[in-house]
Amino acid sequence: MSTDATTFESNFSAESYYATQSPPPSLEHDVRNVRDFVRKHVNAGRNVVLVTSGGTTVPLELNVVRFLDNFSAGTRGATSAEYFLKAGYAVIFMHRQFSLQPFSRHYSHSTHPFLDFLEIEKDDNHSSARINVTEKERAPLLEVLTAYKSAHTAGLLHTLNFVTVNDYLWLLRAVSQELAVLGRRALYYLAAAVSDFFLPRQKMSEHKIQSGKGSLHIEMDQVPKILKPLVSEWTQGQAFIVSFKLETDPSLLVPKARQALARYGHQVVIGNDLHTRKHQVIFVSPSPGLDNEYVETWVRIDPSQDLTKEVEEDIVAELVHRHRAWIETSPTS
Amino acid sequence: MSTDATTFESNFSAESYYATQSPPPSLEHDVRNVRDFVRKHVNAGRNVVLVTSGGTTVPLELNVVRFLDNFSAGTRGATSAEYFLKAGYAVIFMHRQFSLQPFSRHYSHSTHPFLDFLEIEKDDNHSSARINVTEKERAPLLEVLTAYKSAHTAGLLHTLNFVTVNDYLWLLRAVSQELAVLGRRALYYLAAAVSDFFLPRQKMSEHKIQSGKGSLHIEMDQVPKILKPLVSEWTQGQAFIVSFKLETDPSLLVPKARQALARYGHQVVIGNDLHTRKHQVIFVSPSPGLDNEYVETWVRIDPSQDLTKEVEEDIVAELVHRHRAWIETSPTS
Repeated sequence: MSTDATTFESNFSAESYYATQSPPPSLEHDVRNVRDFVRKHVNAGRNVVLVTSGGTTVPLELNVVRFLDNFSAGTRGATSAEYFLKAGYAVIFMHRQFSLQPFSRHYSHSTHPFLDFLEIEKDDNHSSARINVTEKERAPLLEVLTAYKSAHTAGLLHTLNFVTVNDYLWLLRAVSQELAVLGRRALYYLAAAVSDFFLPRQKMSEHKIQSGKGSLHIEMDQVPKILKPLVSEWTQGQAFIVSFKLETDPSLLVPKARQALARYGHQVVIGNDLHTRKHQVIFVSPSPGLDNEYVETWVRIDPSQDLTKEVEEDIVAELVHRHRAWIETSPTS
Repeated sequence: MSTDATTFESNFSAESYYATQSPPPSLEHDVRNVRDFVRKHVNAGRNVVLVTSGGTTVPLELNVVRFLDNFSAGTRGATSAEYFLKAGYAVIFMHRQFSLQPFSRHYSHSTHPFLDFLEIEKDDNHSSARINVTEKERAPLLEVLTAYKSAHTAGLLHTLNFVTVNDYLWLLRAVSQELAVLGRRALYYLAAAVSDFFLPRQKMSEHKIQSGKGSLHIEMDQVPKILKPLVSEWTQGQAFIVSFKLETDPSLLVPKARQALARYGHQVVIGNDLHTRKHQVIFVSPSPGLDNEYVETWVRIDPSQDLTKEVEEDIVAELVHRHRAWIETSPTS
């Protein structure tokens, strides 16, 4: 069957998306590794959380030079992953390539470069010189390093990469199918900033778009709303699913969160405003037993009281609590 | 004077760009620091290179959630900066926030995380535990760390950040005005991947563009060709200026490099193809004394011969040589 441009004019359903767009080449390999990871933790009776993190790109060219991106350093996801590990979860950390990662996030090359806190202890013989950590940085590094080594030694953290929104969509579906064996013990923490728009492969130009021909016009299609099949098909309504809404206009947060819950039927939307997201978020969830009623709960920290406190600590604590209740409401499938 | 949308329909000249778009808030502060850096090295009789590196963004919203970006990790710029330091240059490293930086580039959190080569030497008393570098990583880290500390102690590396193409355009003009006192001793190594298109402030939407209203249409204006005023006005034809061309269609490289030299009148265009750029580049420059004639020189490395060799070492060596000749052709202003 040949496809022509008009095929792609209308909005994509999840089905038509996967039927017309190509999976990333590493998909099979990635899925196999996730399967091994999940099997190990199912056998150990451990809960597993999928944390998605960072922005997705929308390439404008097949040989990509330019792309649309979503603002996200990946702080929320990387920080939360550490607290999920602390709470005893096995963590699949599915993140945008080069976005922040658990543990190494404390040592950004721009704001806190590790080279600055290493010292060379001189010796007569240069080749035997020692490298030491400065006094000031030793204790915090020891804490991070200990947690990092313990997560890796115990095999509790599995990391996956995506770059484009297409990578993300294929990975999310495949990983959710692997997590289905966990039933209610799977938690989804969908913190990635996923593009609402994309450029179908069939509309992309092969080479770098040339300038010098006037202004640039881009027309993009809507990304299908994959929360719908994720909730009702891929996870069969068993998993505990948390999605995020980021807005810059705070008055839109609650209405848009309620709308998402009504449409997709999942458990929690965490709303955050671009400007206050480091200090507060709002949990919106369906009111138990009441149709079209919602419960809103603020989670806030006070940075003037404790500079080292991170809002993700409280977000994760609240979710671990709710997830436990969710697991207890019905037997694991 | 009020501005309406039609004012922005035509192509921007550099003049109209700076007259209608706003400087970044940190500009004055950044320029003051560059001035101090330049003054110190002018007095010491040192050559100064401005290395630009990484991609620029084009925000689609004033409260930015989405942006257009140019593919660039910043490898070329960060690597070259190290070789310029080795060659005795003072380096202004003007780079995209979070792109690779000299020295720390060797320790990407994704591909070579430093936490992996630190070991905890256990002690009875946890608080006095030592952190050691593994045997395998000690020698290379010592080499990087020594070069890093020596550049910083001698004050030879000054780092500046940009994010948007607007930040970049304002910074480049301001920095070039500070470098003018160096006359022919200033070298420009413009390796940043700068957007050809932008969205004037006057056309941006205030808040996050809402999805659910069909497809996304973006129309962007052309970024003015600022190499022209950079060469003839801001640097008064004195500085040695190297620009880069990245193409995905190799047949376009040389014609586009020649076109740029004919238009802007600078010294070298370094052409690189997206797929082979780690191993080879082509230098295109005007033929001395011959109008509309150009000399092309390949710079190539053979990775099968030496895995640790970087093409930037040879690029920088060639440029240092050409820059020395440039300085000698006429007295410093």
